[in-house]
Amino acid sequence: MIPRYTPPEMAELFSDRRRLATWLEVELLAVEGWAAIGVLDPGVAAEVRRRAPLVDDAFVAAVAERERVTDHDVAAFVDVVQDRVGQPEGSWVHYGLTSSDVVDTALSVVLVAAADVVLADLDRLVEALRRRATEEIGTPMAGRTHGMQAEPTTFGAKLALWCLQADRDRQRLRRARAQMAVGKLSGAVGTYSNIDPAVEAHVCAALGLAPVPATQVVARDRHAELLYACASLGATIEQLATEVRHLARSELGEVEEPFGSGQKGSSAMPHKRNPVLAERLSGLARLLRGYLGAGLENVALWHERDISHSSVERVALPDALTLACYVTRRATGLVEGLVVHRDRMARNLLEGSLGLVFSQPVLLALVGAGLSRDQAYRIVQRDARRAWEEQRPFRTVLEEDPEVPLASTELAAAFDVARSLRHVHRFLDALEAVEVGPGARDATGPGGPDDGPGAAPPGERKEERAPCP
Amino acid sequence: MIPRYTPPEMAELFSDRRRLATWLEVELLAVEGWAAIGVLDPGVAAEVRRRAPLVDDAFVAAVAERERVTDHDVAAFVDVVQDRVGQPEGSWVHYGLTSSDVVDTALSVVLVAAADVVLADLDRLVEALRRRATEEIGTPMAGRTHGMQAEPTTFGAKLALWCLQADRDRQRLRRARAQMAVGKLSGAVGTYSNIDPAVEAHVCAALGLAPVPATQVVARDRHAELLYACASLGATIEQLATEVRHLARSELGEVEEPFGSGQKGSSAMPHKRNPVLAERLSGLARLLRGYLGAGLENVALWHERDISHSSVERVALPDALTLACYVTRRATGLVEGLVVHRDRMARNLLEGSLGLVFSQPVLLALVGAGLSRDQAYRIVQRDARRAWEEQRPFRTVLEEDPEVPLASTELAAAFDVARSLRHVHRFLDALEAVEVGPGARDATGPGGPDDGPGAAPPGERKEERAPCP
Amino acid sequence: MIPRYTPPEMAELFSDRRRLATWLEVELLAVEGWAAIGVLDPGVAAEVRRRAPLVDDAFVAAVAERERVTDHDVAAFVDVVQDRVGQPEGSWVHYGLTSSDVVDTALSVVLVAAADVVLADLDRLVEALRRRATEEIGTPMAGRTHGMQAEPTTFGAKLALWCLQADRDRQRLRRARAQMAVGKLSGAVGTYSNIDPAVEAHVCAALGLAPVPATQVVARDRHAELLYACASLGATIEQLATEVRHLARSELGEVEEPFGSGQKGSSAMPHKRNPVLAERLSGLARLLRGYLGAGLENVALWHERDISHSSVERVALPDALTLACYVTRRATGLVEGLVVHRDRMARNLLEGSLGLVFSQPVLLALVGAGLSRDQAYRIVQRDARRAWEEQRPFRTVLEEDPEVPLASTELAAAFDVARSLRHVHRFLDALEAVEVGPGARDATGPGGPDDGPGAAPPGERKEERAPCP
Amino acid sequence: MIPRYTPPEMAELFSDRRRLATWLEVELLAVEGWAAIGVLDPGVAAEVRRRAPLVDDAFVAAVAERERVTDHDVAAFVDVVQDRVGQPEGSWVHYGLTSSDVVDTALSVVLVAAADVVLADLDRLVEALRRRATEEIGTPMAGRTHGMQAEPTTFGAKLALWCLQADRDRQRLRRARAQMAVGKLSGAVGTYSNIDPAVEAHVCAALGLAPVPATQVVARDRHAELLYACASLGATIEQLATEVRHLARSELGEVEEPFGSGQKGSSAMPHKRNPVLAERLSGLARLLRGYLGAGLENVALWHERDISHSSVERVALPDALTLACYVTRRATGLVEGLVVHRDRMARNLLEGSLGLVFSQPVLLALVGAGLSRDQAYRIVQRDARRAWEEQRPFRTVLEEDPEVPLASTELAAAFDVARSLRHVHRFLDALEAVEVGPGARDATGPGGPDDGPGAAPPGERKEERAPCP
Repeated sequence: MIPRYTPPEMAELFSDRRRLATWLEVELLAVEGWAAIGVLDPGVAAEVRRRAPLVDDAFVAAVAERERVTDHDVAAFVDVVQDRVGQPEGSWVHYGLTSSDVVDTALSVVLVAAADVVLADLDRLVEALRRRATEEIGTPMAGRTHGMQAEPTTFGAKLALWCLQADRDRQRLRRARAQMAVGKLSGAVGTYSNIDPAVEAHVCAALGLAPVPATQVVARDRHAELLYACASLGATIEQLATEVRHLARSELGEVEEPFGSGQKGSSAMPHKRNPVLAERLSGLARLLRGYLGAGLENVALWHERDISHSSVERVALPDALTLACYVTRRATGLVEGLVVHRDRMARNLLEGSLGLVFSQPVLLALVGAGLSRDQAYRIVQRDARRAWEEQRPFRTVLEEDPEVPLASTELAAAFDVARSLRHVHRFLDALEAVEVGPGARDATGPGGPDDGPGAAPPGERKEERAPCP
Repeated sequence: MIPRYTPPEMAELFSDRRRLATWLEVELLAVEGWAAIGVLDPGVAAEVRRRAPLVDDAFVAAVAERERVTDHDVAAFVDVVQDRVGQPEGSWVHYGLTSSDVVDTALSVVLVAAADVVLADLDRLVEALRRRATEEIGTPMAGRTHGMQAEPTTFGAKLALWCLQADRDRQRLRRARAQMAVGKLSGAVGTYSNIDPAVEAHVCAALGLAPVPATQVVARDRHAELLYACASLGATIEQLATEVRHLARSELGEVEEPFGSGQKGSSAMPHKRNPVLAERLSGLARLLRGYLGAGLENVALWHERDISHSSVERVALPDALTLACYVTRRATGLVEGLVVHRDRMARNLLEGSLGLVFSQPVLLALVGAGLSRDQAYRIVQRDARRAWEEQRPFRTVLEEDPEVPLASTELAAAFDVARSLRHVHRFLDALEAVEVGPGARDATGPGGPDDGPGAAPPGERKEERAPCP
Repeated sequence: MIPRYTPPEMAELFSDRRRLATWLEVELLAVEGWAAIGVLDPGVAAEVRRRAPLVDDAFVAAVAERERVTDHDVAAFVDVVQDRVGQPEGSWVHYGLTSSDVVDTALSVVLVAAADVVLADLDRLVEALRRRATEEIGTPMAGRTHGMQAEPTTFGAKLALWCLQADRDRQRLRRARAQMAVGKLSGAVGTYSNIDPAVEAHVCAALGLAPVPATQVVARDRHAELLYACASLGATIEQLATEVRHLARSELGEVEEPFGSGQKGSSAMPHKRNPVLAERLSGLARLLRGYLGAGLENVALWHERDISHSSVERVALPDALTLACYVTRRATGLVEGLVVHRDRMARNLLEGSLGLVFSQPVLLALVGAGLSRDQAYRIVQRDARRAWEEQRPFRTVLEEDPEVPLASTELAAAFDVARSLRHVHRFLDALEAVEVGPGARDATGPGGPDDGPGAAPPGERKEERAPCP
Repeated sequence: MIPRYTPPEMAELFSDRRRLATWLEVELLAVEGWAAIGVLDPGVAAEVRRRAPLVDDAFVAAVAERERVTDHDVAAFVDVVQDRVGQPEGSWVHYGLTSSDVVDTALSVVLVAAADVVLADLDRLVEALRRRATEEIGTPMAGRTHGMQAEPTTFGAKLALWCLQADRDRQRLRRARAQMAVGKLSGAVGTYSNIDPAVEAHVCAALGLAPVPATQVVARDRHAELLYACASLGATIEQLATEVRHLARSELGEVEEPFGSGQKGSSAMPHKRNPVLAERLSGLARLLRGYLGAGLENVALWHERDISHSSVERVALPDALTLACYVTRRATGLVEGLVVHRDRMARNLLEGSLGLVFSQPVLLALVGAGLSRDQAYRIVQRDARRAWEEQRPFRTVLEEDPEVPLASTELAAAFDVARSLRHVHRFLDALEAVEVGPGARDATGPGGPDDGPGAAPPGERKEERAPCP
């Protein structure tokens, strides 16, 4: 992934250094596993670990150098490690193992760590959504369907639904992490032909992985599930971002992305506060869908494995997890710093709609007054149309309509925002079941590589505080 | 989906009749819900149900006829139902509801039912895999990586791994079903503006759904998860089918698809027993991936909903679930009826490989005899190459090699299949944790629309029974 | 594809009857080809054609019946045809052919015909766009970027760009059609082992196809290109539809979908004129992307073919072409019938924007007056922000700003719509190079299976005619 | 893209340095364009170019530093350039332009250059395929369908078909390049509100681009077509690679990837010559499909643009073109260095098949001898099955069958490889129409970042030269 979208933890996790360091740890644990079951003198195992090379840039370079000869990365790595450890102890490095025992088990370690980073980020996103949902639960605005004003809702209701959805994605990612927390050291075709299952058990226990039956590699439906969890998370953030983009548009003006003091919105149109972060998040969801497709194609490997999945995974797994981390962090900053224009929301709802958002209560009031549904529907449709075309308040048009058999108080009740929103607390009630994740508790705040105004301190973010009806 | 791939249950579930019948049940339950909370006289609700139309072909046609006027399917449906029920009771039909309350809740009912069909099919697939894994656990064959013979494994080991993977897909589908078992009757933007939450609770309870906070519609990450579960299942079956295709090829001849007596394999090459079912299953996985992509694009709806997801779902949801059902059933038939040529497997392993599948035990024996890993590696590589080029047994080449410091008994141990497979029971052990699903217990056998030889009775399916080494 | 989205021509083209009729024509032409090169008495060939069965529902049923025995559709077909033709002439049916010679060549015939239908539809869409672009080239409205008002444009400019883009898709589809207009009758592995190339040439010439070197089948990159052309077309229509959805939203109100007189917009909110057709078109683009993915996976068949592509193509090719036809027709109806609210466009542009859409000319005027770009930028940004926050005309704020060194006439020039749009004719000029396709010339109008208000006669469609500035 | 798969030219083309250098060139050409139409003193334009900064690492760093303030990359770039140029001339930099005028036009320049690199690579791939097709046109081997031996073909026939397919992809990429060779300098919404079309014409002409009507940006169907061309190319190479993987498998042994002298095939199974390059190429096709999906989702931007496409394109365009370059080069190396085991091909065809590959000529001979097709079919199917089950030559079984009315010479003719392949030259004939691209003529050979044995000199690559039958 390009640096622009790569948080530092992800850069580290998917670095060559980290990969080789994890390989080395698997190799050393395997040597110790042989010692634990009595095949090898524990002193030798200890000596191997003592002499094991430091995995630094020089080591990475040495392996790369060696790979130019072997054209096989694990073979190159083993050669260098054995050389550094020296003989005869070095011969125990990689003893009984096949490359995939090391590579696939180490891949699981890194992917689990990456999933944990994203999960902690998701804890913070969920909390940010919960906090702002609580703040804005009483902020009325127009609910819209088909892009048209429909009925009143509140901004907090939207935030609460996103919180619930992000929580579902958190659960998906947790399950995918659990599917990924598996290792295998069972040899070339998974039969433990040259290794003892106890060695596998030893290594996996030390790494926090469950040993699983395997071919040469761990089954790829697991990795695909991780890519699915990332793509689903991306789609949730795309949804949130799409809403911000809609509400930010000139004609609505209901929200604004946080905007730094020196920031230039557009080189040509300086007044614009463009929702560029939300647009960026929308776009990245598309990439995440692409990686999932590739991941699902990786499942049907040939026989006990072919290595076609490997080139895909060298790109798709780091890129997907890096983007999942990036979009979660930036979405958190967006949610935390989002400027909410409560007065504009109220104005759009009450004046902008001409009261048409209350057409359904009017319809029901007419039915309650004895009209058939079809009669009531035609009256409402006709008067709503007239209000819209003449740009006059719907209520006024109804009052003038001799076919409308409603008293003034009945009409007033139909046009009462508070009545429409009398159940809105239920959105908050639903959040009580949402867990506060550990990532949210130890949060030191979001922060990505180009973490600009999204990280604005909470105190700066809300301009207005309209009283709630 | 085309009839060729549509099992009858799926045809019924996704028929217009079933859809309208489910809509009607939601409407009637809602009327009864209003009665249950005292808004409506229970006698009226009973009368509405009594007078409710039978959902038959004539009713479907009447709604279609009406839709040509309204250009809105739910409006047409409500018009026809109200007309059949008659006034004044008819006015209570759809009272306080928005179209999506009916459509989305009914969609959940149908999708849950469809998922249940596939889950029962999956129970049978898992059981078929378990049964055949048990039968074939002692059937040695060449394990292959990169398409090359690698080390011995058994056919049962493959089957066991597929069983575990199909079980993971079963869990994925169960979770997706649980995510889908939700309903909403909360009005135009989910705020219960014109409906009582108790009505929603009444309807959902009767339908086995959990009411959830919603916009106008249930959140679409849930439907995407269902499509993911189908795509993952498709990929698992693609993997199994790909293996069958490989093992069936002329040069391997290790398995054969079941083949009916009158069946013609090829119009031009009558001797061929082509793995056409496995090929078909491979292809259908590609379609399932495509539906998932569309489903993920459906998540980011605008505001409280736009209806862009609807056209996608009218196609993708029935097609994906129908194909998931179809591929699961046909895969079950394939697994149950698969002809296993044990003698050919043994021959390919022992003669075909020239013994090269034992190169790793030889390597370890050489290391055990004091050679460095690198020395041992070079000897094995050189002698293996020579064996391959001269097409002579690897063991003979090693015996002739003065650099090989191994006694005859040491070599014999390295070339012992039973030793290589001494841990193979672990694959079966892992299956003990796999649940026997209810679908497997009440199985009346597979059966799809073009259910040919895949459904061959179990007694006919295995030609040979080679004793196990 | 479901009937709702299936135009009648597509239903016919992808029917069983049509498929078998095309197969039969290939078979008969092949017999005549053998006669043409002297292998067979022309009288026998004539007799075969004379006795060839009529492909009606009974014939389709007979083949289906036979397929239940053979489990092979071409074998069943050949059996039935030979039986109807009778012996000894019947033996010449399918002589020297392999199934794919018939199936793949016939598939090309059908796909070319389907592409031709969509191409004729595209001719009409291009013309509708051109016509409306011409009508609306002088209709000023706010151009918007990032959802924010940016600078003036005209509605005709948008339409012209879509016209150009639809024309590019027409070219893509023509190229894909050309790639698809190929046949092969070269036997089991494409070597003409049992057939004379002259027979292939005879058959292909009669069908309007070019014979191509092949394996058992025509290469699948060709079919994938057809699916790409459909997906690209879908994306173009998605773009157009997305714009309609945006412009139709309550707060903009600049366009409206055509709306029939009896049509119900929403069962709960009768005043809404929801852009449901545009939403539907947006959704269907997602399905078209999914079919493309599957089509690209079909390319890498094994050896001289495996049949995994077949199940994909039975679904994806008809569904993609059917949807391509459907979305093109409905988009044409949408474009033709779209209600344009010119007054609202003008109001949004001039009042709604507070004049901020002229910030760039102001910026350049300031630079022209000697300020540095950075100084000018800061002034414009500050005054624009002030105008927005105080909801006062931008021009007034500038006039009050002592730092703005512009005379009143200079400001007036900067705020002149006509000046901003002085080059807008260029969009129309670009359309002159766009070909009028034959489909547009013989147009009898659009029309799909649920062809409602989109097909409203042109006279009814535009409500207002605001003079152009 | 990760360094492992990034050829150096692509690294350079998609570097920050190259991007900023291209931006600068667009800016300077625009200033000169203003001068060319008399708005600006040519001397000033010359001075701007003279003082323009060198785009080196320090410049890149300065822009990045400035971007941390502006949070807008073009604004940062313009600030730095104007600062380096100095006032008052600096004010003319970016005069009348909007960011996208620069960014999108520069993007076209880079993408065209990248496409040209891949096109030159494709010229070499096409030539390598043509050359080897010519060499191997007389190398008989088993053609296979469904993984089963079907009829004889030659290895050259396969190569020729890939050559034709790669040529089709070359044409696709050329068309996509032509679609991409467009620029726009027409302002914020494409109306030339603050720029003269002649400036656009000046800039585009100098850059080899055609100016096109646009919104703020060039339409994204063009970029999607480029991604399609890459995905189609990837699928073609996937097909070729899949065939190599099949033919290389132990049981076939017909081809072998080039293998360096020090290379280690497998850390555990040293004898294996795994087709790892072909597997890698297979995998990368999956990624290319994923980028295409994202690219098609980019088409439907909002209004005159939203910037959601940008984050996608920062990743997908470089990654797709880089991979397209990588896979083309490595595929060329694979084709050039592929070891062909002609003797093994012959043996598999003649002995391995038991002669069953001649069942179709036998069938036709039986029909020629007067049997009905159905009778003939049953005899062939039965005798073929018997041959297969008894593992005896098909011809012998036929000779023993009293129902077979064929003389020995008739049987011999049916079993004649040369007769089966009498038309195989047609595959080569078809290559005559394939253009020799300029990239092939100035070829200095393939070469990628990890260019190992794929680049083996031609002389080393073929082990055997079996005479052709």
